[in-house]
Amino acid sequence: MTRTLRDLAALSGGELSGDGGVIITGPAKIEDAGPGQITFVANSKYAHFLASTRASAVILPRDMEAPGSMPVLRADNPYFSFLLIVRAFFPEKPFLAPGIHPTAVVGDGVRMGDGAAVGPRVVIGNRCSVGDGTQLLAGAVLGDDVTIGKNCVIHANVSLRERVVVGDRVIIHDGTVVGSDGFGFAFEGGRYRKIPQVGTVVIEDDVEIGANTAIDRATLGETRIRAGAKLDNLIQIAHNCVVGEHTAIAAQAGLSGSTVIGRGVRIGGQAGFAGHLQVGDGAAVGAQAGVDKSVPEGIMVSGAPARPHREEMRAAAAVRQLPNWMKEIRRHIRQLQSKEKESESTC
Amino acid sequence: MTRTLRDLAALSGGELSGDGGVIITGPAKIEDAGPGQITFVANSKYAHFLASTRASAVILPRDMEAPGSMPVLRADNPYFSFLLIVRAFFPEKPFLAPGIHPTAVVGDGVRMGDGAAVGPRVVIGNRCSVGDGTQLLAGAVLGDDVTIGKNCVIHANVSLRERVVVGDRVIIHDGTVVGSDGFGFAFEGGRYRKIPQVGTVVIEDDVEIGANTAIDRATLGETRIRAGAKLDNLIQIAHNCVVGEHTAIAAQAGLSGSTVIGRGVRIGGQAGFAGHLQVGDGAAVGAQAGVDKSVPEGIMVSGAPARPHREEMRAAAAVRQLPNWMKEIRRHIRQLQSKEKESESTC
Amino acid sequence: MTRTLRDLAALSGGELSGDGGVIITGPAKIEDAGPGQITFVANSKYAHFLASTRASAVILPRDMEAPGSMPVLRADNPYFSFLLIVRAFFPEKPFLAPGIHPTAVVGDGVRMGDGAAVGPRVVIGNRCSVGDGTQLLAGAVLGDDVTIGKNCVIHANVSLRERVVVGDRVIIHDGTVVGSDGFGFAFEGGRYRKIPQVGTVVIEDDVEIGANTAIDRATLGETRIRAGAKLDNLIQIAHNCVVGEHTAIAAQAGLSGSTVIGRGVRIGGQAGFAGHLQVGDGAAVGAQAGVDKSVPEGIMVSGAPARPHREEMRAAAAVRQLPNWMKEIRRHIRQLQSKEKESESTC
Repeated sequence: MTRTLRDLAALSGGELSGDGGVIITGPAKIEDAGPGQITFVANSKYAHFLASTRASAVILPRDMEAPGSMPVLRADNPYFSFLLIVRAFFPEKPFLAPGIHPTAVVGDGVRMGDGAAVGPRVVIGNRCSVGDGTQLLAGAVLGDDVTIGKNCVIHANVSLRERVVVGDRVIIHDGTVVGSDGFGFAFEGGRYRKIPQVGTVVIEDDVEIGANTAIDRATLGETRIRAGAKLDNLIQIAHNCVVGEHTAIAAQAGLSGSTVIGRGVRIGGQAGFAGHLQVGDGAAVGAQAGVDKSVPEGIMVSGAPARPHREEMRAAAAVRQLPNWMKEIRRHIRQLQSKEKESESTC
Repeated sequence: MTRTLRDLAALSGGELSGDGGVIITGPAKIEDAGPGQITFVANSKYAHFLASTRASAVILPRDMEAPGSMPVLRADNPYFSFLLIVRAFFPEKPFLAPGIHPTAVVGDGVRMGDGAAVGPRVVIGNRCSVGDGTQLLAGAVLGDDVTIGKNCVIHANVSLRERVVVGDRVIIHDGTVVGSDGFGFAFEGGRYRKIPQVGTVVIEDDVEIGANTAIDRATLGETRIRAGAKLDNLIQIAHNCVVGEHTAIAAQAGLSGSTVIGRGVRIGGQAGFAGHLQVGDGAAVGAQAGVDKSVPEGIMVSGAPARPHREEMRAAAAVRQLPNWMKEIRRHIRQLQSKEKESESTC
Repeated sequence: MTRTLRDLAALSGGELSGDGGVIITGPAKIEDAGPGQITFVANSKYAHFLASTRASAVILPRDMEAPGSMPVLRADNPYFSFLLIVRAFFPEKPFLAPGIHPTAVVGDGVRMGDGAAVGPRVVIGNRCSVGDGTQLLAGAVLGDDVTIGKNCVIHANVSLRERVVVGDRVIIHDGTVVGSDGFGFAFEGGRYRKIPQVGTVVIEDDVEIGANTAIDRATLGETRIRAGAKLDNLIQIAHNCVVGEHTAIAAQAGLSGSTVIGRGVRIGGQAGFAGHLQVGDGAAVGAQAGVDKSVPEGIMVSGAPARPHREEMRAAAAVRQLPNWMKEIRRHIRQLQSKEKESESTC
């Protein structure tokens, strides 16, 4: 399948500058793109690749300088325009045909939506509900009383524990666990006694969760991942946490119990959060940050313990200089002390 | 189901103060509790919630001030009393009925205890033993020669590899792997050669392990999780480690090979341990700590590299002040130097 | 099964010194070894165990002092010689007999190699290819169009997603996911839009991957793990990363998108990498390092943000001294200031 650049301009909303008749065979990342391919630069950090790319066309922000004679699509959001072009070359297709595979095990009182697809070896507990067009891939396990909305994709070997609720258009990647018991114990009589974990987890619409992530059920009440939030792989979400709308959390980050993350927050990989914290809307948390107190709205924090990013950068720079600076200060002090002695003896 | 506060006092061992006839509809966390609900405060850190809670009763430590006219249960261990009350409202019930699901695959020479329950699509290797009342949930896989004690719950898609031994009353959450090969290679002839991992893993009685955790088998001998230890989600336990009795490890912590953790140790989330270390009984390790040498008994360490918590706090405070302090010291030195010059010229 | 030390010398390439007729019953780690067992010391760090070991023989580097009268095997690479001896006592044996278990689900157009073994409840998608002698253990799931080479072991509940390519002699431990979608979203219209992840993952020959690791497919093109690389448990490899030949990555480390790791690199546990970085051949990265810029060939970096290890050690030492040093400097300055005042008044 090929497309003219003119066609791609039309479908991606990009403004064509240069030869619209160029034949495009597919999209590629700028480092990899070759003749016939279209690529993009969204961030000036990667603009230096433009000088050497062998791509036949490039999508650029409206204000970025274009390389020589290459045809360009100008866009307000080049990454989104690129997305539309990738989708044009690689149309989405379902993983499974509708229907229930004969090796699936379906409990009593299960409601199955129109066009839902249940793959081989899926296990569905009693009284579950699976929405229209939802796909459950091989080996996925639903406990009793699980509710899943429409047009979701639950990948292989995912485990959705009893009573978990999932909204519409949710994607959960392979091996992820939703609804495992929260980590709660009372120490009594020389040993830990398990606090019953009788709450649940609610995953709202348009959430995507990566592979091998773990989201614990609430002790009481619910753990909630709000609409549009995106979670990467190997993330820990403890009992009673809330992740806000359109918040993105990178891989291996971890939230302790009852942490509440606001809306539109960005969290870097391997960041950790102590429990019972609030992170305000629009905040940002650096990779590997150790967040031990609440973060106000709109603030970027980093470091461990985390603090405003600018302060952390200043302190990190100071630490970097510290060994040399210590030497220098010691030298100054020795000089001053010896002059002092000298002046004592001469005055 | 409702209970009078008087009944709850009796079953939880709390000492009633106020109206015992109050009808309680259920337990709730203090932030969420509404009329009819009972809640608790165990830690003075959360005592400030008492002023605004809408709960109908609260369990408090013996010495914590009670809010106005609210009926109170006084307890030595309010969290444990709360546990008993949660359990009263939410009695434990098995995940599965006893018996072997027809889709389970059971190997040769397997010994199945009384009342054991094997869920759909479970695979049990040859010569395994499953104790009385133990439940194996959907998709769990037991390699050959696995032994599990009584009244365990092995959740969905857990993998217990060949020869692993599990005690009584053990709970292992979804997706966890016990007995994967240790990470051991000899570098020879320009490439890594796999050291055969021929040891095993022993999980003792009353251990609970979270979701998507990985516990490697020993190279030789055994990796051992001792009685009553509690491990959270996404934890790495390398080959030949020992985790002591009643030790609690929070999510995403990781132990390198041959690390030995004592009894009653508390380990924070995302903490990491170099190999061949000992952590003494009753020690505590802060979240995200990087432990690179052994920790004596009863000590709390934090930071990376980890050191006694008090030192780490002092150093962290010093680093926080460092940029301003550097400025101040430079200013003092300049002043002293200029005075020195002045005095040189005037003396 | 027992062996004489003379036999073990012959099969391991060790040079015998002492009584070759000693009967050896098996191998053991030096801390655990008892009478009849053979052990090894490869690293002078563990030489102190030699004084107290109860082993009957030990494999040592050519230049390490032997304990008293104990028979010794001298070797250039004692760890590798030990490996050969472990293998002699514990010969490798397959997990499964060749053939397809009746509960496995095999798609259309699947090519199955000679001696391949497919365990219970395995699901193989359409048009997959499984090489000669490869074993797929219980609950493993292969998406459509997956290709696996010869003599691989794919452990229980592993998920290999659509179009993933695996070479020969690859081992993948339980619960690991290869080919989940990369974490890529364009923010447009107030919400994240999913970038289609249409690339794949290639795992080359002789790679070993631990348990519950996640390796994302490329957005476009491929994520690639090169020949002989060894990955531990719970590792995150993001979209479009490359891990070089014979590179070893310890547990819980994480690579952000498009990170390229060279050949023969060693990466410590819980280390994290920002995206679009290059790590040169032969580099080393300390545990918990936070790598935010490219690392040249052959360099060791540590700390967060990571820098050359020597600098990091100096800075860490300086930070450790900082609180006391601050006090000392303040004292010096006060002394100098008071003398200054004094001299002002007396001069």
